[in-house]
Amino acid sequence: MPLEALRYDVTPVGLHYLLTHYDIPAVDPSTWRLRVGGRVRHELELTLADMEARPAGRRTATMECAGNGRALLAPRPVSQPWLAEAVGTADWEGTPLRLLLEEAEVLDDGVEVLFTGLDRGVEHELEQQFERSLPLEEALRDEPLLAYRINGLPLPPQHGFPLRLVVPGWYGMTNVKWLTAITVLDRPFAGHQQARSYRIRQEEDEPGEPLTRMLPRALMVPPGIPDFPSRERLLEPGPCRIEGRAWSGWGKIAAVQVSTDGGAAWSDAELADQGDPYRWVRWSFTWNPEGPGRYEVSCRARDEAGNEQPLEAPWNLGGYANNAVQRVGVTVRPAA
Amino acid sequence: MPLEALRYDVTPVGLHYLLTHYDIPAVDPSTWRLRVGGRVRHELELTLADMEARPAGRRTATMECAGNGRALLAPRPVSQPWLAEAVGTADWEGTPLRLLLEEAEVLDDGVEVLFTGLDRGVEHELEQQFERSLPLEEALRDEPLLAYRINGLPLPPQHGFPLRLVVPGWYGMTNVKWLTAITVLDRPFAGHQQARSYRIRQEEDEPGEPLTRMLPRALMVPPGIPDFPSRERLLEPGPCRIEGRAWSGWGKIAAVQVSTDGGAAWSDAELADQGDPYRWVRWSFTWNPEGPGRYEVSCRARDEAGNEQPLEAPWNLGGYANNAVQRVGVTVRPAA
Repeated sequence: MPLEALRYDVTPVGLHYLLTHYDIPAVDPSTWRLRVGGRVRHELELTLADMEARPAGRRTATMECAGNGRALLAPRPVSQPWLAEAVGTADWEGTPLRLLLEEAEVLDDGVEVLFTGLDRGVEHELEQQFERSLPLEEALRDEPLLAYRINGLPLPPQHGFPLRLVVPGWYGMTNVKWLTAITVLDRPFAGHQQARSYRIRQEEDEPGEPLTRMLPRALMVPPGIPDFPSRERLLEPGPCRIEGRAWSGWGKIAAVQVSTDGGAAWSDAELADQGDPYRWVRWSFTWNPEGPGRYEVSCRARDEAGNEQPLEAPWNLGGYANNAVQRVGVTVRPAA
Repeated sequence: MPLEALRYDVTPVGLHYLLTHYDIPAVDPSTWRLRVGGRVRHELELTLADMEARPAGRRTATMECAGNGRALLAPRPVSQPWLAEAVGTADWEGTPLRLLLEEAEVLDDGVEVLFTGLDRGVEHELEQQFERSLPLEEALRDEPLLAYRINGLPLPPQHGFPLRLVVPGWYGMTNVKWLTAITVLDRPFAGHQQARSYRIRQEEDEPGEPLTRMLPRALMVPPGIPDFPSRERLLEPGPCRIEGRAWSGWGKIAAVQVSTDGGAAWSDAELADQGDPYRWVRWSFTWNPEGPGRYEVSCRARDEAGNEQPLEAPWNLGGYANNAVQRVGVTVRPAA
């Protein structure tokens, strides 16, 4: 998502970030089925029409890739080289996950729920479909949705047509696309994307800590106009209204601060009303540059759970969860 | 555009390639105007409603970035590092350009038509709006459209909302987005994007040859499943139907050929009916791998004007128009 799209409350389709592990599968909606099984009393096999016939829920959710910020780590882990743009907010519509799990009746020994996508590939020499699990208590919360619409339109292929999981507050890999099966497990899922990928670790052979909810982050619409291709900014003299968005998977945003001197001094930004905690909140700040010259403009967010963005985030092998503050180089032009 | 999206006759929004030189501008459609001026008898100032009230035209057009293939040149020119994915086909709807030029009545000394976008930035230390011109005789052809809809929807911000130029057959930079002015000139436009960028040259100080229409190219949907992150392919044994698309700005596609041995031997693919020459044509080929092992699968197109894709394209400073044949590494698995 180009950062000027932070101006939109809901990200237009085509600007929301995408990460496609393997290929976008070709799905024939007339033969597609969602199978709900495993440790349940009643197995289900549902068509898209069956899904649409059930009560629908809507969630406006900010979704961020767990690898956002990876390209700013040194040494740079080899994977998608995101700077700060792997984020977006969408209006999702679909069937609440809890509704289907209640319909299937989870057995007493169920502990996790596995979500299987139709996208297939080879990773670390292992052929696999993309699969991720959620703890049962997370799957039974109000928020998770089995979405078949985005921003009022049927899902386009790249967002998981015909059905995807959306778990507001969690990093992007949780939100399994091209969903084909939901399986209740009686033990934790040990597949590749759960046990090897998406974990914070320093060495290949340590188990590490799984990534779950999004750490807080504030991003700004870069002020002024860009240089091509460096993306350094050039700004006219005079007061400048800086705006952006902030979000966290751990609670509402409590504060956003702005620095224009590389992170030495910080001033509070104005926060709009966030509404619910799963969508980003707009913030703004009026900056009066002291004169012409180059500035480094930064922003940082703190959530109601007390998590705050660091100036530098600790390195990890996968390059995940780097929520260090955004730094934008801005040259203010002399007055004419 | 991920290459598996070659399966679609019309590329879904969000999968069509994008190149944004500067920032996507925020445009208020209520105050936006298109100004038609310069060497015309009647200057025009049009609202979006004025445009929509005029007779509408539709064009299905394949659009490719002039820099597609750049990342495969050595040494690699510094700019957008496209492999082969900077392409897409869309259904555009809007006002035929010729209709507006006839309404404005071009004066006898008009030779070029300049198109000015609202996107602003700094390039080679020069502040500029994105601007490109067309020779008058090209602007007066039937095909160019001032588009306000894509695939049946209003233009999203990233495709040039509220209005963009679409010139079927020409490379992407021609299709100026966020259009604000059309100016008839009595001499060739000498602005940055015309006189310095988008020219084939070996040295900075030579004028070079301007890029115009797209050279022919065939691309395939990579067969089998991908390795992450190398994108090498793994294929089950047995016959494999390879499909793809081919296009040229110089005429219809006359032939597509496929090689599975790195370009030594070539076989004809089947071509669908292209219809008009400005949209890509589907081709397909049944491959029977002789056995397990690694293959290099390639495809190449020839157009009715006689242009054919080379095995290697000559290097140039900007990294433009590299239409060397696509090469996809495929490992065929042993029979089970």
